[in-house]
Amino acid sequence: MATAINKLAIFGPGLVGGSLAGAARRHRLAAEIRVWARRPDAAQAVVARGWADAGTTDVAAAAEGADFLILATPVGVMPELARRLAGVRLATDAVVTDVGSVKTFVARNVAPIFEAAGITFIGSHPMAGSEAAGFEAARDDLFDGAACILTPHAASLPRLREFWESLGCRIAVMTPNEHDAAIARISHLPHLTASALTLAALTDQADIVSLVGRGFRDTTRIASGDASLWTEILLENHDAIEPPLEDLTRRLAALLDFLKNRNEMALRKFLTEAKCLRDQANDPRANCHG
Amino acid sequence: MATAINKLAIFGPGLVGGSLAGAARRHRLAAEIRVWARRPDAAQAVVARGWADAGTTDVAAAAEGADFLILATPVGVMPELARRLAGVRLATDAVVTDVGSVKTFVARNVAPIFEAAGITFIGSHPMAGSEAAGFEAARDDLFDGAACILTPHAASLPRLREFWESLGCRIAVMTPNEHDAAIARISHLPHLTASALTLAALTDQADIVSLVGRGFRDTTRIASGDASLWTEILLENHDAIEPPLEDLTRRLAALLDFLKNRNEMALRKFLTEAKCLRDQANDPRANCHG
Repeated sequence: MATAINKLAIFGPGLVGGSLAGAARRHRLAAEIRVWARRPDAAQAVVARGWADAGTTDVAAAAEGADFLILATPVGVMPELARRLAGVRLATDAVVTDVGSVKTFVARNVAPIFEAAGITFIGSHPMAGSEAAGFEAARDDLFDGAACILTPHAASLPRLREFWESLGCRIAVMTPNEHDAAIARISHLPHLTASALTLAALTDQADIVSLVGRGFRDTTRIASGDASLWTEILLENHDAIEPPLEDLTRRLAALLDFLKNRNEMALRKFLTEAKCLRDQANDPRANCHG
Repeated sequence: MATAINKLAIFGPGLVGGSLAGAARRHRLAAEIRVWARRPDAAQAVVARGWADAGTTDVAAAAEGADFLILATPVGVMPELARRLAGVRLATDAVVTDVGSVKTFVARNVAPIFEAAGITFIGSHPMAGSEAAGFEAARDDLFDGAACILTPHAASLPRLREFWESLGCRIAVMTPNEHDAAIARISHLPHLTASALTLAALTDQADIVSLVGRGFRDTTRIASGDASLWTEILLENHDAIEPPLEDLTRRLAALLDFLKNRNEMALRKFLTEAKCLRDQANDPRANCHG
């Protein structure tokens, strides 16, 4: 990495925060890695795994003198964490980022606190995660090949970009609004869909649960995500989720109509267009109309 | 396998049929394996891979003297194939099965042809597949750990059961109607949902296609399946698909309502119940109410 980090501080070593510690260590991005967690054992687990040099439950001890800080807690906790960090003496060139999945909330409730304290803050959202939660599921290659969306409110973008690129991420830059609209479509809507599909398919069908194949498993996997965490995320981004959710409901109603009327041509057209778009997600150069 | 096969004949060496040839070879289930395909090169590809001893485009040549026959073509082709097989001299103890995904159609349009000819026919549906199609995607371990549903119309069930168990499948026995109702929920509804979700998320959103993460990819993967094949399957099973599709549409409408009214409690309850059911698909002993 062109701009080496002296002291990296990570707040919240769960799946993403813990993986960040591991990835930063693997890529030797920082001379020193510190993690802060609410529970002492959570902080010590990262140290025990060799992914951090120090673990603490003291925000000031983790942040003191740090030049690269990452908030990896649930977004609801970030404003309070930001207020505590604003009172700590960081390195003069410090950059703070987060990995939250809802960026207008962060722009409104987190970024201003750092700005008022004269601290550089830029939002990040690495598109890497899992239905699993917690440090047990952390992996030092979690970010390999993932997209990472940056939502700059401030300067120092090159340094942040280089950090994520060093972890193997592809970078996209957006405003917080653009980010939230995109994530509503490719993350939040799929979560709601997987949950609704699971309930529609399996409610009161105990005898068929054991029959499901890889198709069903993959289609519904993310429904196993933490319900409280997702409730928070979805409510925070409800404005952006509602239009595509209405769109999805209309499309399913159309499919029902095609089936009831044996409209083979319309059904085939629907499935063909969907296949074409989905193939593009694997290969953006795929040509839908070739 | 307790009941070894002398001559195994597989009709239609695509993803499933080709994988069956490979799996039968790997597990040494048959003294001789023959494949029939419409195109000579498709039949020869299986022989070239070492998964069949003979490949032919002649139905009678493939079937003559066979004691275990598997129809692995699209179900729409099976009645005609059955009529041709009914005129061939099979082994006296021959068992015929299929791997089609819609079983009332098979019970109505395929089984009677074999019954009239005095040939034992029992439907099978191994819950293994992929969004990929064709022999190129075939794998000799495709059936490892998969569920396989048998829909007996006739005797000789133990022999069929042992065949699938030898390939690593877990067996369930159902009537064709029960099969189609179950598959509507765990295969056909997920396919429609993945297609509709892809269109709702990505239509006219070319700039976000490259951002999708593993969650979106998995949730929509099956939408890349062959559109013509799926149009046929879905129309054949429309009766069984309509009730769970209506249920899904209602649940998505409820979610929209929860978001619009910031009904945190209802949203969390919905996601919690879905997580619980989905966790059971990974571990049937998971306790939802513990």
